[in-house]
Amino acid sequence: MTNWTLAARAAKMNPSVIREILKVTEKPGIISLAGGLPSPKTFPVDAFARAAATVLAEDGPAALQYAASEGFPALREAVAQWLPWDVDPAQVLITTGSQQGLDLVAKVLVDEGSRVLVETPTYLGALQAFSPMEPTIVSVASDDEGPLVDDFAATAGHDSGRARFMYLLPNFQNPTGRTMSEARRAALVAKADELGVPLVEDNPYGDLWFDQPPPAPLTARNPEGCIYLGSFSKVLAPGLRLGYVVAPKAIYPKLLQAKQAADLHSPSFNQRLVAEVLKDGFLERHVPTIRALYKRQRDAMHAALERELASLGVTWSRPDGGMFLWARLPEGMNAIELLPEAVERNVAFVPGAAFYAEAPDARTLRLSFVTASPAQIDTGIKALADTVRARLARA
Amino acid sequence: MTNWTLAARAAKMNPSVIREILKVTEKPGIISLAGGLPSPKTFPVDAFARAAATVLAEDGPAALQYAASEGFPALREAVAQWLPWDVDPAQVLITTGSQQGLDLVAKVLVDEGSRVLVETPTYLGALQAFSPMEPTIVSVASDDEGPLVDDFAATAGHDSGRARFMYLLPNFQNPTGRTMSEARRAALVAKADELGVPLVEDNPYGDLWFDQPPPAPLTARNPEGCIYLGSFSKVLAPGLRLGYVVAPKAIYPKLLQAKQAADLHSPSFNQRLVAEVLKDGFLERHVPTIRALYKRQRDAMHAALERELASLGVTWSRPDGGMFLWARLPEGMNAIELLPEAVERNVAFVPGAAFYAEAPDARTLRLSFVTASPAQIDTGIKALADTVRARLARA
Repeated sequence: MTNWTLAARAAKMNPSVIREILKVTEKPGIISLAGGLPSPKTFPVDAFARAAATVLAEDGPAALQYAASEGFPALREAVAQWLPWDVDPAQVLITTGSQQGLDLVAKVLVDEGSRVLVETPTYLGALQAFSPMEPTIVSVASDDEGPLVDDFAATAGHDSGRARFMYLLPNFQNPTGRTMSEARRAALVAKADELGVPLVEDNPYGDLWFDQPPPAPLTARNPEGCIYLGSFSKVLAPGLRLGYVVAPKAIYPKLLQAKQAADLHSPSFNQRLVAEVLKDGFLERHVPTIRALYKRQRDAMHAALERELASLGVTWSRPDGGMFLWARLPEGMNAIELLPEAVERNVAFVPGAAFYAEAPDARTLRLSFVTASPAQIDTGIKALADTVRARLARA
Repeated sequence: MTNWTLAARAAKMNPSVIREILKVTEKPGIISLAGGLPSPKTFPVDAFARAAATVLAEDGPAALQYAASEGFPALREAVAQWLPWDVDPAQVLITTGSQQGLDLVAKVLVDEGSRVLVETPTYLGALQAFSPMEPTIVSVASDDEGPLVDDFAATAGHDSGRARFMYLLPNFQNPTGRTMSEARRAALVAKADELGVPLVEDNPYGDLWFDQPPPAPLTARNPEGCIYLGSFSKVLAPGLRLGYVVAPKAIYPKLLQAKQAADLHSPSFNQRLVAEVLKDGFLERHVPTIRALYKRQRDAMHAALERELASLGVTWSRPDGGMFLWARLPEGMNAIELLPEAVERNVAFVPGAAFYAEAPDARTLRLSFVTASPAQIDTGIKALADTVRARLARA
């Protein structure tokens, strides 16, 4: 009999809580406010069809051949151009989605037991990407403006126990929707530099602002002390699996070697496709249409929450961009327990507990406002209110 | 100043020796017999152009959306159908090239210091994929029929020191071009089962046979004791980065979790593209054209070697399929030392030493017969003979 002995890290890999929850919610007719899927209405299908025809007609064999691990030069240049600080294309590494960027960062910077700091709460996918490298994850206390600088300093550790990095999602965070303030960014970057702690900045949603752009990225303030992760998933389409890492010279070669070992390179065809679509300032025209759509959907959800849930003691954030809104149930209520009752009433959400590295707040939940239509949002929030009301009546 | 403390594993990551060598050989006018690039003549560019148009017209939003980590159902079914044993599509995991399969296998099965067995020599990319998980790699002595079963048994270890797996490339191996015999396959699978050692079978070249198919895969003989890695890179195109893993139920869920954490899923668009191209038995018509082309190229290289190098004491294999031929220089000669002299004469190869986990044979070198044309092969082998002759004259 074959002896499949698992690596110790395999025991720490767990099925995505969200994916398991989403299975519960795969019920016909359910309104899902749970998933993190961009609205397919925003996918520029025709532009991709034209680009696919052009790339294959003009450069087919090269687009289908092996290629450099760093990425397609024109795409690396387009990324450098798009970012709002002075980026050398040589520091851009194209990745198979920004999820791969998280995997590479952990491989290169995390030993078993290494301290890694995260926000409270934080992106679940990052916890999953980091956990195979067996870090000790430490939650930094956070408020509406982001992580608290004093707690960052208190938890950063020193000498051989110094945090290998802090992972941050400063814009329209998944899951909370919150945005780090200008003052907090400036203070955190200064403190990180003082303490020598690298920052890993994940910014998939930064372009999806509603009224005004968020403050400048952390990396723009100290490029030598930060790794920046970006993605085409929310401004073009997630199904191409293309993201990128911008890393300083101190760390780029090791990320590149980890990338080579992981999948040789991201698909050449997809990289040329995106480079072709991006020509002539496509994003400058396209992204505003996504912003406008998502803003209308956020407004619809905010209005429905005001109407249906404010009087029941539920509180929530009103995000300035992105895809998610964060709500909190009345005292004594538990979002994990509430979910099956909500699913019975044909609405689904993600309990917030999944996003905490430590000490979850069981009252929290994440609502996506981008996948369902405004009419579905109305119906879904009404169903959620009915669920909360029924719970309150039983309490 | 930011303190970039690297993980211990990062020190074990090294730039691909081959990629570094290939940089030396990026000289205008050079004939490269070094790279492992499939001939772009074999890429079905028109079929992909039609498939891209169809997929985006019929199913654009879904093709561009997030998708299940397991892979696109129709593609998983096509893989199960294509493989020559009874494969349940539920055991197929679509990966971002088969290189990613190696990364996932190592993550799930290798702890620091775990024993991993490989052939002598073996695929360099596998050594690179495994090394971040810090195994102890042990070379199993091998002859023209593959690894020696007695040495496999002697090096397999036991109890907590038992090898986590042996990695094998039974068909037209990279780098040697050799094929494991039927008898060796049967004996090795039986011994592995007896000792409880899992086998990881990598088969990117198996379909590229010239006169007759190779013996049945190892996995077909003991599916519960093997992980099988396949690829679309050599039968369709590498630039799409699509491969697959077939794994038994004992290990599939952990590979799936590692896949989720690594890049969420392989590109939905690419998976639908390949599933569309594969419809109506495309591979049954297409793969024979690749076999015929590569057979002509192998014949051209074999004839050139006979003509130019046999009299100089160089020996070589005549592979029955695949992309590579393995040669050995006369006693006292070193392929790494010879390479710059060959590059001066406008021909490049890969020194074989790169492919040994232990105790390299410095006289060996790998020649690809698929990227250069028969005329270029003639010129290149003649230049190689001139290089060897010049060396011999100096000795």
